[in-house]
This record gives sequence, C-alpha cells and structure tokens, in this order.
Amino acid sequence: MAEIPIGEYLFRRLKQMGIETAFGVPGDYELALLNHVEPAGVRWIGTPNELVGAYAADGYARLKGAAALVTTFGPGELSALCGIGGAFCEMVPVLHIVGYPSFAAQSSGRILHHTLGDKSYDHYVRISSEMSCATTILKDPENAIAEIDQVLNAMMFHSQPGYIGITEDVVKTMVPASSLNATSVKMTLSPGLEDDHALAAIMAALEASKNPIVVVDGGAGRGSWAPHASDLIKTLRCLHFNTIMGKGAVAEDDLLFAGCYAGVGSLPLTSKAVENSDCILWLGHMPSDFNTGMFTDQVKSSLIIDFQRFHIAVGNKQFQARITTVLPRLTQAIKMSIVLAEKLLPEPVAPLLEQVSGIPASIITQNYLWPRLSSFIKSGDMVVAETGTSQVGAVATKMPKGTYYWTQAVWGSIGYAIGGAVGAAIAGKELGRYKRMIIFTGEGSLQLTAQAMSILNRHGVVPYLFILNNNGYTVERYFEGWDASYNDVPGWDYGGLFKSFSPEVSTNTFKVRTAAELDRILSDDDFQNATSPQCIDMVLDKYDAPEGLKAIFDFKKKLASA
Amino acid sequence: MAEIPIGEYLFRRLKQMGIETAFGVPGDYELALLNHVEPAGVRWIGTPNELVGAYAADGYARLKGAAALVTTFGPGELSALCGIGGAFCEMVPVLHIVGYPSFAAQSSGRILHHTLGDKSYDHYVRISSEMSCATTILKDPENAIAEIDQVLNAMMFHSQPGYIGITEDVVKTMVPASSLNATSVKMTLSPGLEDDHALAAIMAALEASKNPIVVVDGGAGRGSWAPHASDLIKTLRCLHFNTIMGKGAVAEDDLLFAGCYAGVGSLPLTSKAVENSDCILWLGHMPSDFNTGMFTDQVKSSLIIDFQRFHIAVGNKQFQARITTVLPRLTQAIKMSIVLAEKLLPEPVAPLLEQVSGIPASIITQNYLWPRLSSFIKSGDMVVAETGTSQVGAVATKMPKGTYYWTQAVWGSIGYAIGGAVGAAIAGKELGRYKRMIIFTGEGSLQLTAQAMSILNRHGVVPYLFILNNNGYTVERYFEGWDASYNDVPGWDYGGLFKSFSPEVSTNTFKVRTAAELDRILSDDDFQNATSPQCIDMVLDKYDAPEGLKAIFDFKKKLASA
Repeated sequence: MAEIPIGEYLFRRLKQMGIETAFGVPGDYELALLNHVEPAGVRWIGTPNELVGAYAADGYARLKGAAALVTTFGPGELSALCGIGGAFCEMVPVLHIVGYPSFAAQSSGRILHHTLGDKSYDHYVRISSEMSCATTILKDPENAIAEIDQVLNAMMFHSQPGYIGITEDVVKTMVPASSLNATSVKMTLSPGLEDDHALAAIMAALEASKNPIVVVDGGAGRGSWAPHASDLIKTLRCLHFNTIMGKGAVAEDDLLFAGCYAGVGSLPLTSKAVENSDCILWLGHMPSDFNTGMFTDQVKSSLIIDFQRFHIAVGNKQFQARITTVLPRLTQAIKMSIVLAEKLLPEPVAPLLEQVSGIPASIITQNYLWPRLSSFIKSGDMVVAETGTSQVGAVATKMPKGTYYWTQAVWGSIGYAIGGAVGAAIAGKELGRYKRMIIFTGEGSLQLTAQAMSILNRHGVVPYLFILNNNGYTVERYFEGWDASYNDVPGWDYGGLFKSFSPEVSTNTFKVRTAAELDRILSDDDFQNATSPQCIDMVLDKYDAPEGLKAIFDFKKKLASA
Repeated sequence: MAEIPIGEYLFRRLKQMGIETAFGVPGDYELALLNHVEPAGVRWIGTPNELVGAYAADGYARLKGAAALVTTFGPGELSALCGIGGAFCEMVPVLHIVGYPSFAAQSSGRILHHTLGDKSYDHYVRISSEMSCATTILKDPENAIAEIDQVLNAMMFHSQPGYIGITEDVVKTMVPASSLNATSVKMTLSPGLEDDHALAAIMAALEASKNPIVVVDGGAGRGSWAPHASDLIKTLRCLHFNTIMGKGAVAEDDLLFAGCYAGVGSLPLTSKAVENSDCILWLGHMPSDFNTGMFTDQVKSSLIIDFQRFHIAVGNKQFQARITTVLPRLTQAIKMSIVLAEKLLPEPVAPLLEQVSGIPASIITQNYLWPRLSSFIKSGDMVVAETGTSQVGAVATKMPKGTYYWTQAVWGSIGYAIGGAVGAAIAGKELGRYKRMIIFTGEGSLQLTAQAMSILNRHGVVPYLFILNNNGYTVERYFEGWDASYNDVPGWDYGGLFKSFSPEVSTNTFKVRTAAELDRILSDDDFQNATSPQCIDMVLDKYDAPEGLKAIFDFKKKLASA
C-alpha cells in the first residue's frame, strides 16, 4: 500500500477541500511541514508577517469556503491570533497549522527557543483553544489521520477556525495514501432535526403577513448560505435590505432593494420600511453594535424570523433547524404557495444609492465620495471596506450584480481590509472570477498592516487602494478625544510606500486633494481599466464622516443628555 | 481629601516607577483611559500597530526597568501577544494595560464589537494569563488601588509582564490621591532566605578553585543585576566571558574578556578556557538552544555556580538566594578574602575581536562585516541585533565600555529588533545616555515590522539601520530548505521605505553592494556623526552566514551522520 508523510496527507486533504493556496510565514519548527505543501499540489504564499497571513487566509476563506494558515510555534502563531479571533467571531473557516518542536526535543528537559522558558509546550494550544472550534496536537501516527479529519470536519461544521499542531518528527511519519479516498471532509451541513417544522412555521408566518421583507445580514457563516439568498428574494418578490455585515451578499441594483439597515444610521426610507414590516426574514442575523447603528435598531423581535446556523426562530419559537438547508427549501415552498402568489408586489423603490451630490468645490467630502464611487464599481469587482468610516461610508456605494463586497463588521480589527483583500484577490483568481480588487481604508488602519501591499501588488492582482487620509483615527474622534493627539497618526508617503513595497512592479499612485481631481481620475478610462496596481491617497478633512455615522453619534449624544 | 480618577492613579503610579512614556495603539474601549496619560505626566507614543508597541515597550523596559503598553480589548491586545510572550520569556517587566467595554455594556446581553460574538468577556484575560505573572480586571473601585499595586509589585518581583484590564466606567471612578504616597511599588528584590549560606558556599568554591571564570549570561532579568556584574569582574580579576544573550551587559574592551561562549560556535580559545575552568560563576545562566550553540556547550554542571533570580546553585547544592542581592555582597567578600588576594592573575587575552580580515574584493561577507563594525561602535551607542544571522554575527563585533547591546536570544521572534530599538532609543534619551541607536537586522525579519521605521525616524532619535539583504531567511536555510522558495522573501526598496515612512524627516539611505563601499561609508566622518536617520541596505550572498553559525550546523550535521 502506497504511503505518504502526514504533512503531505494534510495538504492533500486541504486541496480536496478546494484550498489551493496556503498562507503563512516560515519558522524553523515549521520548515519540515512546508516541504510538503507543494508536493501536495498546494501553492505557498509567504506573507510579510503572520497577521497579514491570517487576514489573507480569512479573505480567501470567505470566497473559497475554507483556507489554511501555517505559522511556527510560539511567536509565529501568537502574531496571527488577532486574525484568527476575527475568523472565529465572523464564522470564517480558517485552519491554523502550527509547526511544533519534535517530541524528542520537548522531552529533552532543555529550554528551546520560542518557548516561554518554562519547558512547557501547551500554553499556546490552550490560548488558541479560546478561539477555535477544535484543536489538536498530532501525537500518535495511528490516530493522526482521524484527528486531522476531525478538526477539519469541526471547522466546516461550525464555520470557525480549527488548530492543528504538528511536530517536526510526526510530520514525516508515513500514513496510507488511500485514507485520502476512504472518507472525505463534509463541506456542507446536513439538515437540522426540525427543518420541516421550521419551514412550516415560516410559511405560516409569511402567508399571514401583509408586508414581509428580507434582511440579508452577515452572520451564520455568510459564505455558506449567501448563494441561496438571491433565489429566495427573486422568488418572494418583496422589499429586501442588507446590513453593514451582510452588504455584498446580494446585488443592490434591483428595484426592490431598499437600503442598508443600521438603526438611526439608515436612510429614512429604509428604517421606515424595516420597522413597519410585519414579518422580517432576517438571514444570518447578527445584532452587534456596529451592525445595528450602535443598537439604535427598532424592530420587535416577535416579528423576526431569525435564521442562524444551528437554529431558526420564528417569533418566539425556536427550532433546531439550519439556514443552509432551510433556505433553498423555503424558496421552493414559496413557489408552490397560492396564498403568496396572490399577494400584491410591493412598490418598487426609487434608486436609493445613485444620488451623487454636485462635486464639492474643494476637498473631497465623505458625503460626496461614497455615492460617487457607485459608478466606478463594476460587475465582477471585489470590494472590501475597512472598519471605521470606510465601513459605514461604503453603505452608500452601490454593489451591482456580480460584485463581491464584504467588511469585518463585528470583529472590527483595523488593518484587516488590505490583508483580507490579498486573500480574496487570490481566491477570486483561482475561481476565475477576478477582475479588480478595490480596497477602501483609512490611513490609520492601513498603518497596522501596510506591508500587505507587498503581496497585494504581486501575484498578478490589480488592486485599487483608496486611502482615506484624514490625519488619524477619525471614527475614534467620534467616540472620544475629538482633538486628542492620541487620535492622530504620523503622515506617511503612501504613494512612495506603494512603489517601494514592490519596486519591480509597475504601479500608479495619485495624491488627490480635491473632489474635482478625484472625479477626473475616476472618470478616466485608463484608470478604470488599469492593468497595474493603483494607489489613490485621498486627503480628507480630519473631522468629516459619513452621514450615517454622524446620525448615530448625534442620536447617542441626545440620548445621553436626555 | 483630594481624589483622582483610577486611570490617572495608574499612570501616576507608573510615573513613580520611572515610566515616562507609554506605548500603544488607541482603540475605542481604551480612549477613556488614554485621557489620563498626559495629565499624569506620562508621554503617549502611538505605534503603527500593537506588535511594534509591545516590542517598543520591551526595549524601553530593558533600559528603564519597566514599561507600559496600552491596547484595546480583543484585536488590540491579541496583536501584542507575541511581544508580551517575549517579555515573559526573557524576563522583562512590561505592564499590558487593556481598555475593556464598560460593565454596563458587558451585562447588557448584547453583542459588542471586538468580542468573539459569544457575550463572554474573559477569553482574553485567560489568554494573557498564560504569559503574565499577574492579571486583573479592575472591578470594585474599593479594591482597585490594591489590585493595581499587586500586579505592579508582582511584575517587578518576577521581572515579567503583568496585565491590567480597565473598563470604560471604572477608569473614571475616583480614588484618594493620597494612595500614591501611602505605599510604593517595590522596585528591587529583598534578600533571599539563604543569601548568607549561598555566599559562604560560593566563597568556599572560589577559594578552592584554580582558574575561576565569570560568564555573564542574560537570564534572571538581566537589567536588574547587570550593574553589579562589572564590579564583580573588576574585583575578582579573572577571565570573563559572555553569551549571546548576555553580550552587552559588561564591556568587552578589557584584556580579561575572553569571548562569547556558544558551544562549538565559540572561538577555540574561548571554548577551551570555559570548558577547562574549575569554577564558573554563571550569572543569569540561560541554557537555551540559541544561547548554547544549539546545546553544543560542554561544561560540567557540578562546576557551575548558577546565579538565578530566586535561587543560586553551587555545584549540586541549591540555595533560596537571589542574584540581585548576593552579587554586590560577593564583590565585597572577594575584596576581604586573603586567599583570593594571593591568587595569581590569569594571563590577559590578546584582543579577540579586532582581527578585521582584508576587505573582500567584491560582495560583503559576514566574515568581514562583523569584525569591521567593531571600530564603528563607540562608547554611548545602543546596539540591537535581530534573531538569526545578525544575532550570531554580532558576537564578533566588540562592544566597548559605555555601549548598551542586547538581542532577543531565547524568544527569538523575528521583527523584534527594530521595534525594540524604538523603545530603547526613547528610554536612552530619557536617561540622558542616548547617542546613536544601531540596528542589525535581516531583511526577512524587517518585513514583519517595517512600519516601526515611522517612529524610529521621529522623536529625535538618530538610528543606523543596517539591513542584511540576503534574499530571504538565511538562518532558516541552515535548518531546512537550503534552496526552498519558502525561504525567499520578495525584494523591497528599503531606502524608499525608510524615506516614505517619515517623509518630513531628512534621512540618508545607502544601497551597498561591495565591501569596499561599506568600508568607505563606515569610515566617513559625516556618516559616523550623522544627525539624521541612516539606512544601510547591504546586499549579501543568500547562503553566507557568520562562522559561528556555520560551525554549529557543521557539528550538528556530523553528529547526525555519525
């Protein structure tokens, strides 16, 4: 019987799952493992640091369904943790593979580098277990295959990170190659125990309702159910909405799309329609602060049909049912319903997101920027917005059919966007759907992971990096420290950095100081059809913010003083 | 009675301990806390990301005895963990202050950003407790002062990181200002229970020995005992050595200094002298892999007097005694010893580290580089070497009296050096001892934390950033993957980055391709006395390594094949 090393088994398994690229940073405990990446048919993309690697893996997994990050024991894995926490929180299946010192070295009683100096080897797996749905350190070659598959299955089941530690000795142990075919990792969820009951309850609520709506949110592992959401909306023919976290899962160039709901941060028409509905199909409901206009949403929970990964609640009744399996059945059931067929279609909504105000005479305002970007975004684009003003502002940028948009709305770690963009761009290319990768980020956020530009600009990706250069952490000024120097960041020459991180790549950089300049650039054919990376450093006023953000903070201020 | 907010109490306490600067990255849960930094007389230095902040705090604490890092709950604190792990492992007292959401928000039952989405608020403190000597989340204002002081005392006692979480509400609670004077944080260790017995045993061993030596290592919280080491050596008048981790604690321009001991990676004269001694006073002994030439040291443990923070072992007998309190008493006892006074002085050693080989005709070799740098280093300089070839190579660069040199020899997280340099430079300036900050780093390591250049080049520091640009992770090629592409890193324009990270600062950059060019630059008066930041990007052969490193790997290879 043919045998392969455990290291190769692991990467072949990942390849079967659609993981064609692994991200990470080499480290000596992990080198033995890295020898097996390419023989397994997986591409290795080294990232400048582990945090960028973790963000890239997250971005990749959101598109391809799963991703792998490889780091070294101790410093390497710890540096990736913030990215893993984000994947856990936002339900993105990222496998964190960590190269451990050999068991021989561990039991030598000597002090190894990358340890805490205390000859203990379980600190880090305990740390990762706080943010993983399954962890293992492979020990016994007899069980290694089962343990690997168990972590992978748990990761796909929960749609959350798994952790596999592999020592330098175990990685080389031979296992039967046939194990790769004997079983396989289950990539989709099986039906819930009460799917039938949930479906019946949902249909009853829908048929009894006067003005049902759909809210496409971003929880429950968005990637795993989003493909069914468009079908549902097309069939139900009701008004539909999204949230900050759900934006991008369903196209917005549809006359029944009625905006992004974020409490008092929404357009008046949007909040009115959501808050007046008597039956809200809320897909992947994630009622977190950033995703609800800081809890300014006003919807009765009894009117919500709450679709989660492992349960669906219809009003106050909760079923052991699953969004991924119920959604397609619901679409079918709606098609068969005579009651629903007879319901009147809602009034279509006048295009919400195309009102570009006139070009401001001088500096770019956020009020101008976001709607203006709508006509720049084209079908096929991938778009990511950083936490902060970009995330809130991009609500006003229309995502047409065939675009892919996302933002990290709950975890909200600044610096994520450019790292996530790296992974998503590479995933998009693998899926053959990649055209352009468009990134919106504040300069304060970009400073955390600026070195991601180095990979972003390589690998044949054509990024557009739009930098909101507003002299600091503007969104934090709204929270506290309006004028505090701790909210300032030092000025960098972003164009210079963009070129210097990939000196051999032809790149274009712009420093844009007025709205008219920006309009000229965005309207330019060569810019729109660029074949090389573009960096657009936009000077904004340090206190300017999107309307939605201002509305939320105004409301909170009024509440506090009332 | 005058009262001050708890936040201000904390920073005033830190100021009393000599912490004049706090490092970190703002985040909304932490902003309420940051409002108290400057009113307490502490300077805030924002870092581009948390990892750089943690490394800076580590570098600062190594010089000033303690440091503070402030991050935000979740993503912020997690991103700093690798730096905190390094401080734990290498015994550097860094206080990690984390801004938490208010208890009101925590108990609201709602999902807050930066959480894992599970409404649990103790994941991160559990994570940090793996790498902290004390942790607390301040709850009860009644106990807050006692809890703060307890963490600070533990941190100074163990010389390891402490963790204090403060919520947005508790930070504003008032406490009596007088508490600041009522007690104080104990900055030094009290004597051990068996200091007397240990001292007697050490003296007996010393008096009975023929050729005692001192090895200045880097364990036991080097900063807390290093000042006593020079006195001991001066008094004992024996040959003395250092290790990779201990290098820089005692000056090397002394005829009794006989080299850096790293097993087979040592100069022959050095290893012979260490291995033939019959009594080794090993200060802050840290027998870790990187620090012992990968365990190729050959010293009988029965001949070692092993000085640790909480115990001292004389041969096989261990005492509850403390390096910090025993060292100065030992120096006194030696002065009084008639037996030791009558001992012959050892033969002085011919200068070990000044043999600069001729200038190579073409590319810079590591064999040439490190000794050549000796004449560039001047009294007053601060010098840090990155893990990898720099750390091993710098052994051959002489550190004269009045220099401060260090390297992260056990934790060994690449990317540390430039971050650590930021903190040490600022600490050095506060101590009035700063002249130049010299950094040796490989380009692969620099890529992890390149944005540290942004702070390095500001704040009036004059850094010399020497980059060993050798197309990848050279030290890892020696471990595994000699030609593997995973050990390559993409080429960056380091000079361009150096300028772009601080465009308003006048900087000098060099791309050096030959040894002759390097010699010319190093010999130049203007370069030596630069008043602006200097970046020296040196092109090296990708397989070249310091002699010591090659010797260790040759030895290991022979062992493996024997």
